[in-house]
Amino acid sequence: MTKVGFIGLGIMGGPMAANLVAAGYEVAGYNRSQPKVDKLIAEGGKGARSVAEAVDDADVIVTMLPDSPDVESVVLGDDGVLAHAREGALLIDCSTIRPDVSRQVAEVAAKQHVQALDAPVSGGEKGAIDGALSIMVGGEADAFAAAGGVLDAVGKTVVHVGPAGSGQTVKAANQLIVAGNIGLVAEALGFLEAHGVDTDSAFQVLGGGLAGSKVLDAKNAGMRARQFQPGFRIELHHKDLGIVQSAARDAGVSTPLGSLVSQLMAAAVAQGDGSLDHSGLFRQIARLNGTE
Amino acid sequence: MTKVGFIGLGIMGGPMAANLVAAGYEVAGYNRSQPKVDKLIAEGGKGARSVAEAVDDADVIVTMLPDSPDVESVVLGDDGVLAHAREGALLIDCSTIRPDVSRQVAEVAAKQHVQALDAPVSGGEKGAIDGALSIMVGGEADAFAAAGGVLDAVGKTVVHVGPAGSGQTVKAANQLIVAGNIGLVAEALGFLEAHGVDTDSAFQVLGGGLAGSKVLDAKNAGMRARQFQPGFRIELHHKDLGIVQSAARDAGVSTPLGSLVSQLMAAAVAQGDGSLDHSGLFRQIARLNGTE
Repeated sequence: MTKVGFIGLGIMGGPMAANLVAAGYEVAGYNRSQPKVDKLIAEGGKGARSVAEAVDDADVIVTMLPDSPDVESVVLGDDGVLAHAREGALLIDCSTIRPDVSRQVAEVAAKQHVQALDAPVSGGEKGAIDGALSIMVGGEADAFAAAGGVLDAVGKTVVHVGPAGSGQTVKAANQLIVAGNIGLVAEALGFLEAHGVDTDSAFQVLGGGLAGSKVLDAKNAGMRARQFQPGFRIELHHKDLGIVQSAARDAGVSTPLGSLVSQLMAAAVAQGDGSLDHSGLFRQIARLNGTE
Repeated sequence: MTKVGFIGLGIMGGPMAANLVAAGYEVAGYNRSQPKVDKLIAEGGKGARSVAEAVDDADVIVTMLPDSPDVESVVLGDDGVLAHAREGALLIDCSTIRPDVSRQVAEVAAKQHVQALDAPVSGGEKGAIDGALSIMVGGEADAFAAAGGVLDAVGKTVVHVGPAGSGQTVKAANQLIVAGNIGLVAEALGFLEAHGVDTDSAFQVLGGGLAGSKVLDAKNAGMRARQFQPGFRIELHHKDLGIVQSAARDAGVSTPLGSLVSQLMAAAVAQGDGSLDHSGLFRQIARLNGTE
């Protein structure tokens, strides 16, 4: 039986680990807070008391951590994943982090004869629970082939997009487009409301044409009703747009619209809206218009 | 038999008039250039030698003109549509123009006992030929009801969105969102290419998630291949973004992303790309990145 060490049993990692248990993997889970480990044990997994215990004899190690510094510490640190992983193990990092950190992880792992993939996910808590995540995978083709069973147990659309770091790059592009689309729908709503248009009918016809998007479909009703329960929080999207800006700078490209929406998102955080759903960016547009 | 006077038999108006003929209306068409009138006659319509002749005894008058000044001249001018329309006629202006001009048309029409609707369309030449346009209609509810048969003969999604001018407002919001979505997909492509990602796979996974949009689906392959045959030309989208900016100013709202993409589109026109498809905005992003 394939042994999986799973580090990071949060909102996303918890249900992903449970889906691996359900798919027949022997999963040893570790999390800094014990209740999340206890939950995995109740779901049929094993609990680990340290990173070392989770990964020592694992064939596959999955990490799902909040941000780049967490991966640097938990994966690359002195008592971290790569200090304890056995030769020949496969590391799948599902965290959304900077592409350069993913490339560094892959390089350090290779020196220790561990294959590494960056495999950030999209689809939110519901996608994680349903095992229906979209997963953008960077790394070597043979490592991607070896990861098939594990990734298929947690994702529905699993695509290999290029060498190490490429998964993060595509995730960054995803967050760039999503943030921009939210900003555009928010601007359109402010514009339509100011003109006294029936916005329900308007978004119906807009969604049926070339202006249609997943963001428009998923978020326009909430914006119209000023309902911004997360969902995916502004403060996390703000973090991800920092990755976009940093990765764009590293690659020597400009992203004018991405840069502007990043500033709007930063202002939303500064105004205390960080815990709202990212569609709450509408409030920042409304503030600009004096209608908030 | 309902008599329709149709002014403006261009790329969009021509097939719309032909669809009205096919639906059983008696259509008298007028265009400044005679060959387009001859084409309508060959399709079973009648030719008119002047605006006056087209509209004198029409029950319904449809106008499909390039821009606000054309509507001001052809509809409101001394020898124009409203100088000749009979009392009780219905005027449907399908041009994409400024909302304030549409409101002015409705006011002047009302004084002459003509009902007016602004009914800009979306869906391009193909939608016009197929009678499958999306139509955003502003004006009085009873006028919208009276226009049903005519609009259904040329459109598939026909939605009443509010009082006079509202159709233009929604069309402006449509053009704002579409331009922004094109800009975001273009930025994402530049970013992904600079990082050496497999962009075909990347857009496959991006399109399946929250970043998915009609623009991404319709335009990413063309951008990747640098194929920018129109389609909808940059110079027309540039014109429409002028309407967006003017209408936003009138309503006292700001559209930061719309404003930025409007500047990028203006630069594309300035660089000589006005006749390309609007997805050719990618070239402007590539110029910023020194990769054009």
